[in-house]
Amino acid sequence: MKKKPLTIGLFGLGVVGSGLLEVLKDSGYPDAVIRKICVKTPGKTRAVPQELLTFNPSDILDDPSIDTVVETINGSDDAFDIVSRAMRQGKNVVTANKKMLAGNFELLLNLQEATGVSLLYESAACGSIPIVRTLEQHFGTEPLEQLSGIFNGTSNYILSRMFDGNLDFDTALRQAQQAGFAEEDPASDIDGLDAKYKLILLTAHSHGMILSPDQVPHFGIRHLRPEDIRFARDRGLRIKLLPVCRRTGPGRLAVYVIPGLVGDADELFRVDDEFNGVLLQSDYSGAQFLRGRGAGGRPTGSALLSDLLSLQQGYRYAYQKHRMNGSTVLDDQYKLRIYARAPSEIPLQALPFPSPENITRDGNTYVIESEVTLSHLGRQARWLQENEVFVMRML
Amino acid sequence: MKKKPLTIGLFGLGVVGSGLLEVLKDSGYPDAVIRKICVKTPGKTRAVPQELLTFNPSDILDDPSIDTVVETINGSDDAFDIVSRAMRQGKNVVTANKKMLAGNFELLLNLQEATGVSLLYESAACGSIPIVRTLEQHFGTEPLEQLSGIFNGTSNYILSRMFDGNLDFDTALRQAQQAGFAEEDPASDIDGLDAKYKLILLTAHSHGMILSPDQVPHFGIRHLRPEDIRFARDRGLRIKLLPVCRRTGPGRLAVYVIPGLVGDADELFRVDDEFNGVLLQSDYSGAQFLRGRGAGGRPTGSALLSDLLSLQQGYRYAYQKHRMNGSTVLDDQYKLRIYARAPSEIPLQALPFPSPENITRDGNTYVIESEVTLSHLGRQARWLQENEVFVMRML
Repeated sequence: MKKKPLTIGLFGLGVVGSGLLEVLKDSGYPDAVIRKICVKTPGKTRAVPQELLTFNPSDILDDPSIDTVVETINGSDDAFDIVSRAMRQGKNVVTANKKMLAGNFELLLNLQEATGVSLLYESAACGSIPIVRTLEQHFGTEPLEQLSGIFNGTSNYILSRMFDGNLDFDTALRQAQQAGFAEEDPASDIDGLDAKYKLILLTAHSHGMILSPDQVPHFGIRHLRPEDIRFARDRGLRIKLLPVCRRTGPGRLAVYVIPGLVGDADELFRVDDEFNGVLLQSDYSGAQFLRGRGAGGRPTGSALLSDLLSLQQGYRYAYQKHRMNGSTVLDDQYKLRIYARAPSEIPLQALPFPSPENITRDGNTYVIESEVTLSHLGRQARWLQENEVFVMRML
Repeated sequence: MKKKPLTIGLFGLGVVGSGLLEVLKDSGYPDAVIRKICVKTPGKTRAVPQELLTFNPSDILDDPSIDTVVETINGSDDAFDIVSRAMRQGKNVVTANKKMLAGNFELLLNLQEATGVSLLYESAACGSIPIVRTLEQHFGTEPLEQLSGIFNGTSNYILSRMFDGNLDFDTALRQAQQAGFAEEDPASDIDGLDAKYKLILLTAHSHGMILSPDQVPHFGIRHLRPEDIRFARDRGLRIKLLPVCRRTGPGRLAVYVIPGLVGDADELFRVDDEFNGVLLQSDYSGAQFLRGRGAGGRPTGSALLSDLLSLQQGYRYAYQKHRMNGSTVLDDQYKLRIYARAPSEIPLQALPFPSPENITRDGNTYVIESEVTLSHLGRQARWLQENEVFVMRML
């Protein structure tokens, strides 16, 4: 039963890469040995032996003694290049790069098929929550009605600060940055892109459908204002940024990311700060809920380590749902009831509503509640956001 | 990549066995074929083709074409006999039998080692919550400070009815039986034994320690009275039956099952009715919480199906924590602050307290709050329960 240790080439030594080194050391796990670390910027002081470092990816990718690549860099194009080259060289790969994965899912699936190597990415979705393996293994054949949750710790931290601390968006964002929960350029987090990448990963395992980012409409919290908070609070509700994958009929899915109102009875109501939560509604087991830390070096490092442990046991994702539900289609006629608020009347014209009387005006604030198809929302998403309209889903 | 379907011999066709057949059929999963079903009682009408049935275990155990045994019977001795014989015949085994597992853990570990077969039991702990695989894989090498939760749906249903419906214990128990959440003989559920078996399974994976049932003190809710509910409610708290495995120092664990007070900030506060919840406090990832349905044919059938899917992929538990932490010991000097209420003063003498003045009397109700070691609690557990003392852990 004794298997030889993994020999690892690590790309990236930022928060995530360093987190992995830390938990590897702390755990005392004997079966994973870091052979080489490829970093980008020369000259930085790093807490690892100099002889482990290289600036040349080929020192890892072309080294036949390295059987496992762990990819934790920032850029998604470079990451795809590294990951696909490693796979073609017959190396197993563990990656935390949700953008790279979501943007190249089909290709990476084919590459797994063609090369027979294993590509694991538990750390790419919802930090420390074991959601990929839960979907892949525990719900590997069980049909799900819905997958939703809070997948982005940064925006959730901001929302929590706005609700509990009565802060406006910019102040809450600055606090998130100071607390280390938001990057200098927070666009991907606050605009819902990061949550969308994760949703795309999870949809492959929860419902077996492979999507590309341009197929999924996303709205973020950038234009959230105190009056929206008030709207929610007056009703005893909170606002959360909610990625959703919902079965709307046999072989039909509605998939979207949008801020939404959440009531007290909902598990997500109390998922605050940088925490993430995942809600599943499954056909046999009913409601399932998982909650954990959504970001940070050690939680993410821990998820990477769990993938290494799985690799050591010869594990690959089976994509059973994808094999069984290959013909699933998007239901872009699925209707959402939404609330939209704009600083003027004009941008709201992009949404269907019976007549101008349906617009509520309060000073410089214009609000409509409307029922709108995903297809319509998707087409107007960019325009609405450019015009500073805050869109959220009603309960 | 194509593997041949599992050929399965099923033992038992009660709620769980039938649940598996149901979800197997519904899911359309093609890679698991039921070859034979062994049942105990002849003459019952059963919704499966007659030719699948047998009353003779050997028809499964000695059939070389059957590579997988699924065990869902009630008795734990018979189950051990079936499971160990199947393993010796080189068959992989999936079982839902927590009592059989907890009572024979060491033997079954050795048998896995000796035979090389895989024994999986996701369905044996916390119904539909994927907790065994989460501990085994996601936290396979990450040290945990604590594992706790609500592992028994029956007692949790009773507690929810007593709190929310203002019912006494006997009425709540009857309601649980009518709702199908309590068996005719509910002793194992209400006395904390069922929760203890599950705790023993999970401790093997969470902390790597193999325990036998007599090493773990357990208290149940049989003697819970309205005055205890009042005590909790007056303080804004609820009472839950809580199995706990806690690291008290390097290589030292406190392991016990006891009703406990739970506050509003605790995730378990809102785990009601037949639901289960598991709380993990992990060294790298921090707090993790999982919630799902704790019992029922389809949720349990779904967990069995997930194990079959894992078998198809060649999966076995690695017991990595057990390999790494083999020398862990029980800390029986760990102290709990407890509340004990008795119908007379005498049984409370079994607990350490400074002097008789520490007993609070109200009519025929005697209460003490005391600090007591696990070792002491374990020695007195049976006597306290025979004397109708309700014991719970203070916050």
